Amino acid sequence: MKRIAMLILLACVPCWAQTSTQGHPATSNITGAEFPKVYSDRRVEFRLKAPDAQKVQVQIGGATLDMVKSADGVWSATSEPQVPGFHYYALVIDGVAVNDPDSKTFFGVGRDYSGIEIPEAGVDFYALKEVPHGEVRELWYHSKTTDAWRRCFVYTPPGYDANVRSRYPVLYLQHGAGEDETGWIRQGHANFILDNLIAAGKAVPMIIVMDRGYAAKPGQPVSTVFGPGAAPVGSPESLKVMKDMSEVFGTVVLDDLIPFIDARFRTIANRDSRAIAGLSMGAMQSFQIGVGNVDSFAYIAGFSGAPMGFVFGGNQLDVKTAFDGVMSDSAAFNKRVHVLFVGVGTAEAERFHTGVESFHKALDQAGIHTVYYESPGTAHEWQTWRRDLNEFAPKLFK
Amino acid sequence: MKRIAMLILLACVPCWAQTSTQGHPATSNITGAEFPKVYSDRRVEFRLKAPDAQKVQVQIGGATLDMVKSADGVWSATSEPQVPGFHYYALVIDGVAVNDPDSKTFFGVGRDYSGIEIPEAGVDFYALKEVPHGEVRELWYHSKTTDAWRRCFVYTPPGYDANVRSRYPVLYLQHGAGEDETGWIRQGHANFILDNLIAAGKAVPMIIVMDRGYAAKPGQPVSTVFGPGAAPVGSPESLKVMKDMSEVFGTVVLDDLIPFIDARFRTIANRDSRAIAGLSMGAMQSFQIGVGNVDSFAYIAGFSGAPMGFVFGGNQLDVKTAFDGVMSDSAAFNKRVHVLFVGVGTAEAERFHTGVESFHKALDQAGIHTVYYESPGTAHEWQTWRRDLNEFAPKLFK
Repeated sequence: MKRIAMLILLACVPCWAQTSTQGHPATSNITGAEFPKVYSDRRVEFRLKAPDAQKVQVQIGGATLDMVKSADGVWSATSEPQVPGFHYYALVIDGVAVNDPDSKTFFGVGRDYSGIEIPEAGVDFYALKEVPHGEVRELWYHSKTTDAWRRCFVYTPPGYDANVRSRYPVLYLQHGAGEDETGWIRQGHANFILDNLIAAGKAVPMIIVMDRGYAAKPGQPVSTVFGPGAAPVGSPESLKVMKDMSEVFGTVVLDDLIPFIDARFRTIANRDSRAIAGLSMGAMQSFQIGVGNVDSFAYIAGFSGAPMGFVFGGNQLDVKTAFDGVMSDSAAFNKRVHVLFVGVGTAEAERFHTGVESFHKALDQAGIHTVYYESPGTAHEWQTWRRDLNEFAPKLFK
Repeated sequence: MKRIAMLILLACVPCWAQTSTQGHPATSNITGAEFPKVYSDRRVEFRLKAPDAQKVQVQIGGATLDMVKSADGVWSATSEPQVPGFHYYALVIDGVAVNDPDSKTFFGVGRDYSGIEIPEAGVDFYALKEVPHGEVRELWYHSKTTDAWRRCFVYTPPGYDANVRSRYPVLYLQHGAGEDETGWIRQGHANFILDNLIAAGKAVPMIIVMDRGYAAKPGQPVSTVFGPGAAPVGSPESLKVMKDMSEVFGTVVLDDLIPFIDARFRTIANRDSRAIAGLSMGAMQSFQIGVGNVDSFAYIAGFSGAPMGFVFGGNQLDVKTAFDGVMSDSAAFNKRVHVLFVGVGTAEAERFHTGVESFHKALDQAGIHTVYYESPGTAHEWQTWRRDLNEFAPKLFK
């Protein structure tokens, strides 16, 4: 009996030791915060001191976990192993979803939200590495279309300031619904992805412009789709908001943003040196703006999204007649658009996976050449989109 | 009786109308959020839907207000009139201080925090206006001192990219304890302040570098002073952390940051074209780094702070012997340092107001010329520091 107890003890010590010692504070934590802690098997332990709360939960990866209160009033819960990448999450204190005070915040789901970074073993294409780094610039410009000031972020590649005679191609890169112009840097690490690709000689040095995908005619209210008072996402009202907004946004891009960027930066200001890409709602916008304006863009990509008529919007779109019939002559279109990239995660919800796949198939059947990329094991999340960008950027401007 | 009731009704309608119609969503709210709402008398109404919470409060301006629950589970409270400017605040749900989901977040007090902007009537020196705008650039550089990558933000003035032969003076500008390198832009609007001053011809075009005021020797932990597990601010342990950290940070500035900035930007790389300023802990750092290195800086400012030995740190510092005696020959020092600026808010807590005033008096008695600025009616908050910058920047590099 003693011997069995001893064996159990011996067997358990390593388990316990693994759990308690192989965890690390998430890199998305604020400085000094021990929790959330990510274990080597990608389970995450969350904690919150809340002696007077009746119930505390954590919402992550589609699950809601009840946290358990200790004698000292600290609540804790450990999640199932998480998929690598970046996940939004919330703590729920007596029914109210709030940020974890120990997490940095990231604008998503219409507000500043907690997020957690789960490392992917052996993968560092989006990490800050010992390579030359570009800059990310915050700029304000006035839009005639909206009669308002707008903020955009611009990545300039390493050497941009030193090589004063060089001109650069430009990728316009859009966030998803409920996110904003900060998303591709803060959540996506687009700057590090490009720094690393350029250092490895895999991508040409390029400028990336990240604008705010929300726009409204002068005096009209602007919605962030997920924000307060917004209609349920996917509802007809919400789709109409997205559609109307994206039309105005398309005008902003063509009439205000591109002229501003071409005037301010040393761009190569022609279609062969201009790309547009986006994720989810941004994918919808990129197809609409890019395919709708092939005089302005020669490279077009959508990550986890498709034009209205796929994913959202009911009827399937006829790609032959859509966009003023620009794809009806597939040979001409294929010659004109150098890369049409369609990406999706294999673990996305049915609606997205089927919607994007259907769009890809429709293009195929119409004789339109595409690059189709499936991100293995990832859902409608930033790891999918980081991988998409890492796949798409090397195909640009060559 | 009817007539009296009518008069009361007539008298009350305007009051009610004023309260309900003259409020506006705070500009610091997320898109679409109606609350917090700022009324014309600068009272603020906060709301939170939390049907299952036992108690909800709001912490703002040193007060904690109990919110009152309506039948539909929405809690609300209206504060006393707030001082104009930017204030951190928190909601307290059953004892846990959390962000208001309807507010943007700002890094302060060691974490991403809710903040509210209260307009100041007739004052727009920190507003986004119809003037040429500079850029705010995010850069990563490797520090030999800390053996780590560090992030800084750099404001380049309007025209920097176009005027490729122009060189610019540089202001190094530091945040306070518990804040970070994002503070001077997000909370302070330093970019708009400079855009406006430059447009009005009041300040010369300059570069502003905003670094992270936290640093540690390789392998040592870094503290944000207010972060998780930190000692109480003002305690001997906390002061030691600030002191040790600031020493390492001083080395970072002199050995890593200035060489990086001078290599990357078209700076005028000499002391007469270099300034350092900071707020609170950043003021302490600016005096320590600036006065301690007058070979490197000709303009030095502290907003709401002073060297260790004033405000915090017990004994009064002897300015004649401090900093290796650089101020012992006041005539020589006054010739060498073109502006020594000391600022404080009239409504600051005793410790800060007395500490900064004592430092100013000690400088006066030692024959050191200073520019002393008191911000009327403001406390240890961003409105004080915005005004400080607006006063200090026009005195630079002339």
